[in-house]
Amino acid sequence: MSSFPRFTALARELPATVPFVGPEAIERNRHLIVKARIGANENGFGPAPSVIDAITQAATQTWKYTDPENFELREAIASHHGVSIDQINVGEGIDGLLGQIVRLIIGPGMPVVTSLGGYPTFNYHVTGYGGRLVTVPYKDDSEDIDGLLEAAIREDAPLVYFANPDNPMGSAIAGSRVVEFARALPQTTMLILDEAYGETAPAGIIPAADALIDRPNVIRTRTFSKAYGLAGSRIGYVIAHADTARAFDKIRNHFGLNRIGVAAAIAALKDQTYLKDVIGKIGAARERIADIARANGLKPLPSATNFVTIDCGHDGAYARAIVDGLMEEGVFIRMPGVAPLNRCIRISVGPEPKLDLLEQALPKVLERTSQSR
Amino acid sequence: MSSFPRFTALARELPATVPFVGPEAIERNRHLIVKARIGANENGFGPAPSVIDAITQAATQTWKYTDPENFELREAIASHHGVSIDQINVGEGIDGLLGQIVRLIIGPGMPVVTSLGGYPTFNYHVTGYGGRLVTVPYKDDSEDIDGLLEAAIREDAPLVYFANPDNPMGSAIAGSRVVEFARALPQTTMLILDEAYGETAPAGIIPAADALIDRPNVIRTRTFSKAYGLAGSRIGYVIAHADTARAFDKIRNHFGLNRIGVAAAIAALKDQTYLKDVIGKIGAARERIADIARANGLKPLPSATNFVTIDCGHDGAYARAIVDGLMEEGVFIRMPGVAPLNRCIRISVGPEPKLDLLEQALPKVLERTSQSR
Repeated sequence: MSSFPRFTALARELPATVPFVGPEAIERNRHLIVKARIGANENGFGPAPSVIDAITQAATQTWKYTDPENFELREAIASHHGVSIDQINVGEGIDGLLGQIVRLIIGPGMPVVTSLGGYPTFNYHVTGYGGRLVTVPYKDDSEDIDGLLEAAIREDAPLVYFANPDNPMGSAIAGSRVVEFARALPQTTMLILDEAYGETAPAGIIPAADALIDRPNVIRTRTFSKAYGLAGSRIGYVIAHADTARAFDKIRNHFGLNRIGVAAAIAALKDQTYLKDVIGKIGAARERIADIARANGLKPLPSATNFVTIDCGHDGAYARAIVDGLMEEGVFIRMPGVAPLNRCIRISVGPEPKLDLLEQALPKVLERTSQSR
Repeated sequence: MSSFPRFTALARELPATVPFVGPEAIERNRHLIVKARIGANENGFGPAPSVIDAITQAATQTWKYTDPENFELREAIASHHGVSIDQINVGEGIDGLLGQIVRLIIGPGMPVVTSLGGYPTFNYHVTGYGGRLVTVPYKDDSEDIDGLLEAAIREDAPLVYFANPDNPMGSAIAGSRVVEFARALPQTTMLILDEAYGETAPAGIIPAADALIDRPNVIRTRTFSKAYGLAGSRIGYVIAHADTARAFDKIRNHFGLNRIGVAAAIAALKDQTYLKDVIGKIGAARERIADIARANGLKPLPSATNFVTIDCGHDGAYARAIVDGLMEEGVFIRMPGVAPLNRCIRISVGPEPKLDLLEQALPKVLERTSQSR
């Protein structure tokens, strides 16, 4: 017997895969060193000094499991947003929560509506539970929420997903339109409104925390991985109607959160002064990335996130050559995976010295790339 | 609409639950303070100073996601056990891995064999995927592996689980018998051999790492939560045939591990001197717990783990009264949930001052408990 014969039919069909190849794998496989890690939409400015202190203090307590009810963390999040603790649940990053939501709702063959070129990890989870992806193309580099609504109704889909602000395009839809969308959606369709980049969005994009809390068919996802600079902590959360938030308690890994990560998240919420400061730095870094792009004849798209998506003006192969070429210079960035979005590259914010490396490398890479076309 | 109507039929049936109530919840709900946290089979001696150093050093890197392939960690684990990196996979504690295994194999109605009174979190996952638990009673406070084998064959079960050393009884089965069991099992039945307490077991209990590696139907689980003192880090791993280890890559949350936790685990593996020292302390603490039990007229069972299970000589209500009474004194312990195991209480190791509190509290609690019978 070469392999176990009784994995489920679904499991047998699934590929062993990684939705995103990490910079560590690129270093290993291409024998390169990442000097500027500005590709994974992390926040290179890092967490607050007060958060580093909290991590250091929590270090000696790491022999203890985390509270399986995550009471203190949920209380801090609820208080921060002005909602009730039973309207909050937490998980191992938004990625982990997305998997749980799909599990709660989707079985083999069920339609799930999302944007063509949207978040690959969401698609991975849908496929992992046998769901059928129904995709709606982007419109002018923005999520087409009219198209998403139409598709959800047409397919009688139990689940629809989009991110606002959007990844990978960095665009954003007015909060008022998002609320309209959610209220127009059949109550038999669950909306996942992924607000991972909520903290970096300009005013008017993120609806009030309680704007949709009366709707059992809306789950909003947030994270400490982006503006809070805690991607390595793996703490995401949902804001939802209490009945919906409670559903996670039926299936989640109760002891799944890292105790130091929880302490870091609680400390991060307390230090809103630092958050405000870092959001300023993120905005300035976005500007600089856009300037670098323009100085090289490329077209930066408007961004409400911690990255800038840049239209390189040609096809996916051209953008791929730039991504690969920058990596040869030690600059790790990424790009959207699907046409026509894949005419773009996507560069995450980071401190000045990292953007200096980008500024130095980009003209060289563009020259090489243009010559080889 | 009071709740979302389209959760799956299975999800609608599941209760919102917590397999283990944490000491934090007891503190909140009973307005008590835990002075001795010796109930969750944690290792109160904590991780090595070298691990604390590694955590502190990793703190500033927590803005980065963890390598989704967990290459360095898997390599370190593989090297430690003398197996190949593709025979190792990692997850958010054994709890997280158990959920993934059940998901890969079990669908609604399928039989899953385990011991009556065995690990509740495994049962939680089986129920969570609609499996049907087929339980085999313990025999002389030990897993009845003959009974488990018979049940697995009789039911044509796709999955069988037991822990060796065992939780909650602390008993252990000779490694040679475990290997015989695994080789006698139909190749259409997956065995989960949970070796969470592998490091604290005496010689002869844990088979060589490669003893069953040729069997695609055997998954051995290990953890950094027990002897390594890193319960809060949530790092568990499997040792399995490469085809079986790879199956996790079809469904796992690739960015689910905490970066500081990974750094801690790698550092912990490197410090085998500390591990040896702490295993000595665990052994001494077990002896002291057993002595305290005997001095109070209770009967400690032999233990191959980081806890001691103590036969209190009466029924579950009596043991429950002792558990609740000790908590009133600030001493948090637990007990098995099912008769006849629930005539026992279960006390985890910890430093001397914590066991002093136990020693002081137990006679008082026993006196009160006996008076109220």
